[in-house]
This record gives sequence, structure tokens and C-alpha cells, in this order.
Amino acid sequence: MSMPSPSDSPTDPNRCPTSMPSSLTPLFQPASVAVIGAGRSPGTVGWQVVDNLIRHGFQGAVYPVNPEARFVHSIPAWRSVREVPGDVDLAVITLPKELVLDAVDDCGSKGVPGVVVISAGFRETGEEGARLEKLLMERIRRHGMRLVGPNCMGLLNTDPAHSLNATFAPTMPPPGGVSFLSQSGAMGVTILDYAAEYGIGIRNFISVGNKPDVSGNDLLEHWETDPGTRVILMYLETFGNPRHFTRIARRVARKKPIIVVKSGRSVAGARAASSHTGALSGKDSTVDALLAQCGVLRADTVEELFDLAMAFNTPTLPKGNRVAIITNAGGPGIIVADACEAEGLVVTDFTPETLTRLKEVFPEEASVRNPVDMIASANAESYRVALEIVLADPGVDAAIAAFVPPLGVRQSDVAQAIVEAVRAHPQTPVMAVLMGRDGLPEGRAELKGAGVPAYIFPESAVRALATLYRYRVWKERPVQAPRRFPVDDAAVKEILDKAEAEGRSHLLEPEAYAVLESYGIPVTPHQMATSEDEAAEAAAALGGPVVLKVVSPQILHKTELGGVILDLRDEAAVRAGYRELRERIDAREPEAKVLGVLVAPFRRDGREMILGMSSDPTFGPVLVFGLGGIYVETFRDVAFRVPPVTLQEAQEMIREIRSFPLLEGVRGEEGVCLDTVAEAIQRLAQLVVDHDRIASIDVNPFLAFPRGGMALDARVEVGRRAPSGRPGSVRA
Amino acid sequence: MSMPSPSDSPTDPNRCPTSMPSSLTPLFQPASVAVIGAGRSPGTVGWQVVDNLIRHGFQGAVYPVNPEARFVHSIPAWRSVREVPGDVDLAVITLPKELVLDAVDDCGSKGVPGVVVISAGFRETGEEGARLEKLLMERIRRHGMRLVGPNCMGLLNTDPAHSLNATFAPTMPPPGGVSFLSQSGAMGVTILDYAAEYGIGIRNFISVGNKPDVSGNDLLEHWETDPGTRVILMYLETFGNPRHFTRIARRVARKKPIIVVKSGRSVAGARAASSHTGALSGKDSTVDALLAQCGVLRADTVEELFDLAMAFNTPTLPKGNRVAIITNAGGPGIIVADACEAEGLVVTDFTPETLTRLKEVFPEEASVRNPVDMIASANAESYRVALEIVLADPGVDAAIAAFVPPLGVRQSDVAQAIVEAVRAHPQTPVMAVLMGRDGLPEGRAELKGAGVPAYIFPESAVRALATLYRYRVWKERPVQAPRRFPVDDAAVKEILDKAEAEGRSHLLEPEAYAVLESYGIPVTPHQMATSEDEAAEAAAALGGPVVLKVVSPQILHKTELGGVILDLRDEAAVRAGYRELRERIDAREPEAKVLGVLVAPFRRDGREMILGMSSDPTFGPVLVFGLGGIYVETFRDVAFRVPPVTLQEAQEMIREIRSFPLLEGVRGEEGVCLDTVAEAIQRLAQLVVDHDRIASIDVNPFLAFPRGGMALDARVEVGRRAPSGRPGSVRA
Repeated sequence: MSMPSPSDSPTDPNRCPTSMPSSLTPLFQPASVAVIGAGRSPGTVGWQVVDNLIRHGFQGAVYPVNPEARFVHSIPAWRSVREVPGDVDLAVITLPKELVLDAVDDCGSKGVPGVVVISAGFRETGEEGARLEKLLMERIRRHGMRLVGPNCMGLLNTDPAHSLNATFAPTMPPPGGVSFLSQSGAMGVTILDYAAEYGIGIRNFISVGNKPDVSGNDLLEHWETDPGTRVILMYLETFGNPRHFTRIARRVARKKPIIVVKSGRSVAGARAASSHTGALSGKDSTVDALLAQCGVLRADTVEELFDLAMAFNTPTLPKGNRVAIITNAGGPGIIVADACEAEGLVVTDFTPETLTRLKEVFPEEASVRNPVDMIASANAESYRVALEIVLADPGVDAAIAAFVPPLGVRQSDVAQAIVEAVRAHPQTPVMAVLMGRDGLPEGRAELKGAGVPAYIFPESAVRALATLYRYRVWKERPVQAPRRFPVDDAAVKEILDKAEAEGRSHLLEPEAYAVLESYGIPVTPHQMATSEDEAAEAAAALGGPVVLKVVSPQILHKTELGGVILDLRDEAAVRAGYRELRERIDAREPEAKVLGVLVAPFRRDGREMILGMSSDPTFGPVLVFGLGGIYVETFRDVAFRVPPVTLQEAQEMIREIRSFPLLEGVRGEEGVCLDTVAEAIQRLAQLVVDHDRIASIDVNPFLAFPRGGMALDARVEVGRRAPSGRPGSVRA
Repeated sequence: MSMPSPSDSPTDPNRCPTSMPSSLTPLFQPASVAVIGAGRSPGTVGWQVVDNLIRHGFQGAVYPVNPEARFVHSIPAWRSVREVPGDVDLAVITLPKELVLDAVDDCGSKGVPGVVVISAGFRETGEEGARLEKLLMERIRRHGMRLVGPNCMGLLNTDPAHSLNATFAPTMPPPGGVSFLSQSGAMGVTILDYAAEYGIGIRNFISVGNKPDVSGNDLLEHWETDPGTRVILMYLETFGNPRHFTRIARRVARKKPIIVVKSGRSVAGARAASSHTGALSGKDSTVDALLAQCGVLRADTVEELFDLAMAFNTPTLPKGNRVAIITNAGGPGIIVADACEAEGLVVTDFTPETLTRLKEVFPEEASVRNPVDMIASANAESYRVALEIVLADPGVDAAIAAFVPPLGVRQSDVAQAIVEAVRAHPQTPVMAVLMGRDGLPEGRAELKGAGVPAYIFPESAVRALATLYRYRVWKERPVQAPRRFPVDDAAVKEILDKAEAEGRSHLLEPEAYAVLESYGIPVTPHQMATSEDEAAEAAAALGGPVVLKVVSPQILHKTELGGVILDLRDEAAVRAGYRELRERIDAREPEAKVLGVLVAPFRRDGREMILGMSSDPTFGPVLVFGLGGIYVETFRDVAFRVPPVTLQEAQEMIREIRSFPLLEGVRGEEGVCLDTVAEAIQRLAQLVVDHDRIASIDVNPFLAFPRGGMALDARVEVGRRAPSGRPGSVRA
């Protein structure tokens, strides 16, 4: 990770001058902690928090607060936090919910800067709880404190200078560089357990609960500048302020990897998340887009979360996707090679020199082509030699050494040999796969110390390596500002004002075209006609076959009502078509006020795309781009981004869809102009950013040609967007 | 698994009357074992095999054979197997490869029925090794023996009546109902290790190595009738005789689940497999089709192999896909619900009665809708009560109980409670997820005994449950014989004879149509014209716009050469088109002998499908069906099957493609006639089965209409198909 970090530059558009990570410092580095609700019975939360503080050697004073106890866990107890003789930096409240507000007031009087409310019974339980949480936040704000929770399991900081375990979790994880946030307390406990088992060193852990105050975004900013945090992990069920998250995460991810498990991806899961923490989850494809856009690495499962956290143990990121595989048996070699190909990594061809060197060293029965199978006679020294040879190959960006224990070779020796080879070639990441039951415990500590992530299953190692590579690619992208096009902002405002004044939910088709044109998005030529003669004149002026479409504020679904007639080839057909259209509407929708008929060229050429914006209840506006026509619904071949988008992001959207080859041209057909499409996406993004009175846009189809392109239909919905973070929701 | 097993019926078309599982009995149930090459030094294979036999209490006599030792491992040794005083049922040969043939001859003289050759240095090492293996097989056949290996790690049988461990693996797995074959020795060792760790009970284990004799197919037939085998696991790198495998597996899978990890799925992986065992791997999509068709369950990873093996611990298969989820925390509930949706399981809505009963029992803060979150105050008894309530719900086909350890609740108590609930409702499968580090070891034994598969990660439990459900669906399908249509077999034979006699690699287009029509597959109307006048007459007779296509044995790629002219609307256009076509061919391919021009209607309607057969180097003929047009290559939206196919399989192919909704009809369009398409697939399959001189068929497009359908173009390649199992390859 030696490349310069562009976001440190003062001109970085992602830079956030208002970040205030310091306000969380008392939470993680308190000189003293009061436990309000400290209990005398082992097994209660109030006892366990005190026990964890003491047992894990908190470097500061602990003040149990309990009006009915003289001491708790052999420590003198106080009747109220106000009676504590010294300063209190952090108060952990484990009282029943009814008593929490008074305790917070006590903390306010005492001048406590940070409060953790472990108690449950707030917004997660329904309306009454939500009211109580609102009152709680009013007190917190009044006293100028920071609040973690309610409905959480606390926080910890393994920094030996503090050694703070202010949770009731049964496990203290080993110290290390990973800072970890969990929205779910239960998953937090579980994950700390796994961290201990996997040997993942934790820097900070925090369970944020309902997070009305301290949120994921605050923690990202805190960990951004925390020198002890190398990797950030998050277990999230909901996003609160995703646009804020986007901005912060984009910046932080350039400095430190952020790995997220976002659950609640299915409808059933989201329903569970909703009853669980009381906030709506975003649609999963939107979440994927949002996270990818910010360089955040998404893990599908908790297991993968750890596999990735482990991967960032490497001292460097792979400079490319070409992998060397070293094994002592064919089976694992095949599995690793399969997994590499599935994950977009390349099982590279070695140089002739590498092949020659390998042949010199290994017996005839060995296979020296990649994957290198040193066969069962290989010993620890074979691993060192083979790794050193392939790591010296200029075509190798990373290596995976997989070992199956045969008779007579100890895994710890192999681990040691891998470590030696890696020390000699520190510029190339190496992953170890030690298969078999006794693989990991024996070799892992040594490997970990040398920056070699170690796995039991080959697929885990490969997935993790592929993620390192993707992260490197993202990180090396130049920081681009979204381009601002000169546009006719006022024209759009006027159209929206008019529609609002007339109480319309949608723009008329000519208005929608005008909005697009004001932002430089090309639209089909078109003319309005209010009589048969005008229609015929318009058709003649446009030339070629035309289409007629009814224009009426009362008619949204033109096609379903027969309000569109296609492919009219001569004047007689146009005139007949005009009459037919008016008759149909008179018959089917007599109440509709018809303002006229739109005449436009009928086209069969070009590639049909869709281009649009919809308003996600969680994320706000989301841009969509994809293949148009009847295939949209079938293949859902679309890409999403949160606006604004840079040129690069627009280009990525285009390349991301599976039917991209059709845009490039297949079977000798000429491709479409990708620059036109990319510019239309960027201009649409700018329109969406500039005018938040536009609730949704649907350009379907946008026809793309070898040269140029145009909107052939457009619907623009007017109105307030779904709020970003619904009322009463919480922040990410 | 109480449903009748239809393959037991004598009319079952899958029944194989020639299966001879008995010839493998001496391998797994020997009364005596000779170890030829038994060694005196611990750490050598020859010593380890003897040690494993003794240490694991082989119920029979062990005869070490070593010309230079008086005893091995305290057992009297013999100079040659011929000198052994009693009968020898099984000989395990661990000698250097040069000595193997003589040892096999000794075994032949002695009358040993079964031989395991552990020694490497045969076909896996190249041509010379392949020659040696051929000699070895000649001797084996001459002596009428069965051979396991060479290049393997032996076999074991945990049946207490035999207690045979004739491997050099360091681990003896616990006894149980899983029989397991590994093509890779190294993966075998690893998997035995995991089996011990996961607590998966093994019945038989066998490492088949290069498998020139005893193959996967033999073992399927052996285990089919072995009463101790409940589940069959296979780790495969290559298939040898896949059509044989298909036939056997289809039959066996109706009795016992077969779970396969087939590796070598990528190009790089296949290359590794090829250098590893010397056989080409099949294309992965074909493998998927083949396995699914036989009801074989494919695991993607070794980890999943065990997750599935574990799942079949349930006493019953789920009768449907509706799942109830019980947790004590929101997080795991969300994860399980997400995973269910991703795997095609339904997080069911409970009946009002169930909701009422749950509400009566749990506190207000709990969420009684599915997933049921009993919150952290739930204890072991809560699990019992909740499970009993949801298992009594008629809309629940399976339940997943997930537990995160809070303070004060022991996992073993929860396991016990789950067991009690399951005992009361044995008809519904229940999976347990015990999260956290100490989850599984504490509760697993109890759960396992009660038929409750237990997992650490929620996703594993859900994937496994989904597989149980899919297996149930497959198993309950009625056994169908492929329908035989009355066809004009002789006409096809005549056309193929003619093409062969003329040395042509492809049929002419009219011939290809005739072949399809002989098998009742509808084709476009068409006429041949050899003059401008004939073309004009043909066009007039056909009516409407036409297409002209050149017919010449020398021209395979008509379109590329300009040999096709579309959409000719009147006589003048047809005449001009005819002249233009002849001129083009004269100019571009003067050597080509033009037999005429095919005139056919030009159509824009209908839905373009592709229908065809290609010849896989491993599997032989494979049918393909999918979306046609330019989208074929982009979305690869195709389904594969190995012929013959039943009506149900043809229908499944149609429903399997992602664009199936387009066939059903979207946006108010009428769908296409699915019966026509299904019948065309079955007839094509029959054609492929009947005429093995057809090397490939490509009907692209097959136009499907609301009523009927037709081939609009057809290419038929004549010649030998790629052999099923290349020369020198081995059997699955």
C-alpha cells in the first residue's frame, strides 16, 4: 500500500473539512468509566461489564454506580454518578429503560462527555420505545454528550494504553489492527468469538444498537485518523444516511480497506431487519452499487468477512491479477485454479526461465507448469525453493501455496519455509492454504507474523486474493470530479414550476423532452399537432414513417389506452391515424383533456437502452442504465449508481451490463457510440442532482447509434423524492 | 425418505440387469490382507499401511510381504505373497513401480481376487507410465482380478465386522453411513481429516487413483446395494464413461443421495487435472446438466460437500420449501431469511393460530412473525416451545433454529431442547445453527443423534436445506421413459449415406431440412430454384416476401460470403436478387459448385430460439436449447441435456432458460406454443440417439409461434462424434 493517497490533497473533492473524529475519543480512550446499574450478581449485564473492565485490565478508574450496594466486584460503589469523586469520561448505563433518562441527566450534571446505553426497550420495540428514544436524544443533545446505543452491547479498545472492555461479551479478542462495528449486538458477540478463533486482531469494537447519535459514518471518520486501525469491518443491517456514507466511505476507503457485511438483502430479511431495528433496508442491488462506487468491499457472509480481514494482513496488494499456484498434490491445484478463473484471476504462464529453473529442482513426475504440482515427495524446503522461483518471475503478481499433509512433512515446517520465501520477496503477496484438520493452528501464527494470510479452504484464499486485487484497482483509479456541463437550468425550473402549479404528477411528453434537451441530452425530433392537417404537415416535415402519440395530462399510460400508433408511412396513413387516435381516446377516456398529438419519426434502427432515475426509500435518487426493450425485465441487465457520477463511473456503468458486447458490436455489426451514452448518463446525473423536485425519470428507450443517440420516449415524474432516511430512522 | 422407490420396479427403464457389485466385495470385506512392500521404517507408506491395519483392529489376518524382513511391525513377514500359508483376499502393493507387475503376477498365482496398487509412476506421469499401466491392466485381466489404483491411497471399511483401514492416511474417520470415493489421494487425506472434525461418519472410503479398472461407476453399483451406505460422496476430477455414469447414477440417486464435488471446472483447472490424472475434463456447463439430469447433487466446494453430507442426517426430506426460522437475536434471523430467499426457499407466513400461540408465550418485545425473534431473554425452553408451535403449523415444511449465546444460556441446553421438539415432530426436518466459537462441539453430538444437522454458519444450513428440498423434488418425479416417435429412419440414413459417399462434412440445407422433417420437426416451406424464372415462380408460390440462399457443398458460411439475400418483396426484386446472388458467388467463390438457390418465406415474426446438438469430447452428444438471435452469445441463455430426453426433461430445459418469460409472453403479447418446442427437443434427441453419424446439429433459429413453430435455418455436420472418453482415458 505504498501509493500516494490522493485524498490527502487539499483539492480532493471528497475531502470533508467538517469531520470531527475527536468527539469520539472519550468513548474509546476514557481515563475513567462509571458503570451505572453495576450489579452484584454474576451473570447479569451490570456485573459482567464491571468484570470485563477489571479482568481485561482497564488502564483507568472504574466507578460502579448502584444506590443499594456498598461495593461491586470488590470495588467501592457510588449511589449516583454525581457522587463519584473524580472526573468520569465514559458512563455505561445498564439500567432498566425507565431509569435511563434520569441517569443521563445525572451524567449531564457531572459533565460526562460519553454515554453508552446498553439498555433495550427503545425504538426497536415500537412506537412507545421510539418516543422514549426521542426523549433520550433530546437530553443527550442538551448535555452536549455523545451517545452509543441504546440497545447495544458496548465497546472495547484493545490499545494497551487503554485496554478498555466496556461490553458484556464473554470473549476479549486478541489485539490487532482491525476496527469493527456491529449494528447487531448478537452478531457482535458471535463475531468477537470468531475473531478470537481466527486469530484476527481487533483494535476497536463497537456495537452501535439503534444508533440515534453515534453512527457508522462517525466511526468511519474516527477510524480514518486512528493510527492503530488498519482495516475497518462493519456488520450492517440498515443504512441511515447513505449519501453521507458514500461521501465519507469514498474518502476513507482510499486510506484503509472497509469491509462490510450488509444483511437484510432479501424481502424476508428486510422484513426481519425492519422488525429488528426499525429501519427500512435499501434494495440490495442499490446497496451493491453504492458500496462498489465507494470502494467498499462487500462480504456475503460473516465467514467471508473474516477471510477478507485476514487477507489484508499482506504487506502489499497484488500489482496485477496473475497468480502462481504451488501445491504438493494435483487435487488442491485444480481447485485453486478453478477458483482463480471464477474470480477473475489469471493462472499465469511462467517464463521459460522459470520453467527451466523449476525443472532443475523437481523430479520428472512433478508438473512445473502453473499450477506447479511438486507431488507428495515435496518437503518444506521444496515450498521455499518453488516459491522463490515463481516469485522471481516478472509475470507473477501473487502466489498461492497450498499444502496437503503427506506422511513425514510437518505443517509448521512448511509454514516456516513459506515465511522464508516471502521474506525474500516482500513485494508480492502470498496466500497459504494449509489443508487438513491440523493445518491452521500449527502454522498460522508464524504465517500471520510474516504477513501471509492462511486459510483452510482453497476457495477462501482465492476469493480473498481476488478482493485484494479489486481493491487495488479501485484504489489506483484517479480521483475524478463529476463534470459540470453548461445547461439551461432556468428552463427546467420553469417547466417544473408550471407542472407543480397545475398539480400534475408527471410532465407532458414534450415537456419531458424539453427538460432533457435543456440538459443537453439528445431527444427525437418531434412536433405537436392539434389537427389532422397539422399532423400531416409535421409528418411531411419530419420525413419517412412516423409515430403518433396522444398528449394529455390525464393519460399516463398511452400505449395501454391505444394512444400510440406506429409506423405510418404516408400522408393518408397519418391522417387516418390522427383521426383514429382521437376517436380512441374520446371513446376510452372521454374525461381526458387532449392537448394534441405528438408526431415523431418512427425508427427501427439503433440499439434500445434504458436510462433513468428512481428514488429509493433509503438511498434517495439512484441512476439506472441498461439494455432496453423486452429484455430489460427478463435479464434485469442494468447497472446502478448514486449520483453524481464521474466520467469513469458512467463508463463503468456501460461496461458493467452483460449485454455490453452488443453495444460494442457483434457479428460484424457496427457498435454504438459509447461516448454519447456516457455523456447522456452524466448529464442525466447532473439533472437529478440539480433538481430535487424530479421524483423519477424513465427514458425508455434511449436509442444509441454508431454516431450519436437520442431519447425516443421520456417520462418525468414530479414531486418530492422518497426521503433519504425515513422519519425516525437512524444514521448508518 | 418413506416414499416408494420406483426404480425397484422391474419395468424401470433405468434398471441395469448387468450390475455386478459383488466383484468388489473382496476389496471391502477381505478375510485377509497381504501388504506387498510392507516396510520396517515408520513414516514409509509400506509401514503405515500395516500400522493402520493393526491399529484400527482389522478383523482378519495381515500378511506383510517383504523379502528382506523376518517381521514387520511385530508380525511375521513373508518373502512373497505366494509363500503366505492361508488365502489372501486383498493385496495392497506399495512397491516401486518397476516391481509392481511381478507382484501382480505373484498375486495371480496365489489366486488373490483384489489388488490395491498404491504405487505411483503410471499414466499420470506421461506416455511411458501409460504404457506401464496398460501392461498392468493386461495382467489384471489375465488373472481375473479387480484393481484399485494405481496411484492411490487405498481404501477403508469401518463396518465393525471388518474394520479395515488399508490406507496410509493418518486419520481413521468415525463410523457412519457415508461412503466416499476420491479421485485425488491428497484430497482424500484432507477429506478424511475434515470428516473426523465435522463428525461425519464414514462407511467406506476409497481412493481410486488412475482407475483403469475399479471406477466410480462400479462403486455406485456396489454402494447401491450396500445396506450400510446411506449417502454417497464423490470427489471427481474427470469423468471416464459419462453415459454409463448417467444411467447408473439416475437409478442409484433414487435410492440414496449422491453428492459430487467435480473439480477441474475452469480451463486452468482442467489443464491441471489433465497433467494430474491424464484425462480431459468435460465442459462445466455440461457437467452441471449431466449431474442435475441424474439427480446427483453437486457441491461447489469440499466445505459444501460436508455441509450436504451433514444435511442427510435428517430422518425425512422437507415436503415443501416453506421454512420457519427461530432465533434469539435479530441478526441471525435476517441472515437466515436472506439466505432462504437466495436459495429458493420461502420464509413462510404463519397461520393466525400459530401467531396467537407464539404471542401467548413470548414477551411483547419478541417478534412472532417469521423469522421469530425470541430476543436475548430466550432460554433453552423457549426454543423447545417455539419449535413445537411452528412445527405444528401446517404451512411449515422445515425449520431452522439459530442460536447466539447470550449470558446465562448454555448451548448444550438449547441443543437438548431442539432435540426434544424434533422428537415430538419427526415428520419435519429441523436444522440447527449454533453460532459462536463454542457452539458446535458442545451441542453437535446430541443433535446429530437426533437427526438434526448442526452448522456454525447460517448460510451453510440454508444451502443444505435447499439441497434436501431439491433432492426431494427430483426424487418424486415420476420415472418416465423417453417417448419414441414414429419417424422415417430410412430417409435419414439415405441422406447420410449420400453425404458420406460424396465425402461431404455437412449436409446441404435442403438435406438438413429433409432430415429434420423425417423426424417430424417442422421446417420452413422452401423450394429450390436453378434459374431466375424458377426463383420467381417459387416466390410467387410461397407468397409474401422471400429470402434467397445459395446452396453449394463448397459454401458453409453463406452469410459471410453474401450468399443470402433477405426480404425480397416482389417479382422484380426476386429476379434481381437471384442474379445478384449468382454474380456474388461467381466473383467471391468461383470454385464453388452452385447446386441452386433455396427460396423460402422471409419472416420477422415469432420468437427466435436455438436448438441443436454438439459433441462434447468427454460426454459425447449434448443437446442444447435456448434463446436465439444476437442474444445467444451475450447471455448464453441456454440449457443442456444428455440425450435421450423425456418429455419432462424437455419441458425443464424450456423452463430453465432465463428468458422463459418471453416464451410465456410479456407485455400482453401472446406466448409461444411450448408443446411444439418440447416436442421438437424430444424429436431432435431421438434423431441424435438414432444416428451417431451426425456429429452436430445447429437449428438457428427455430422460430416459435403462438401456434406451432419451424426451423428457419439448419446445419447438420456429418462424421464421427468426438469419442466418449478419449483413447487411454479412464472410467468415472
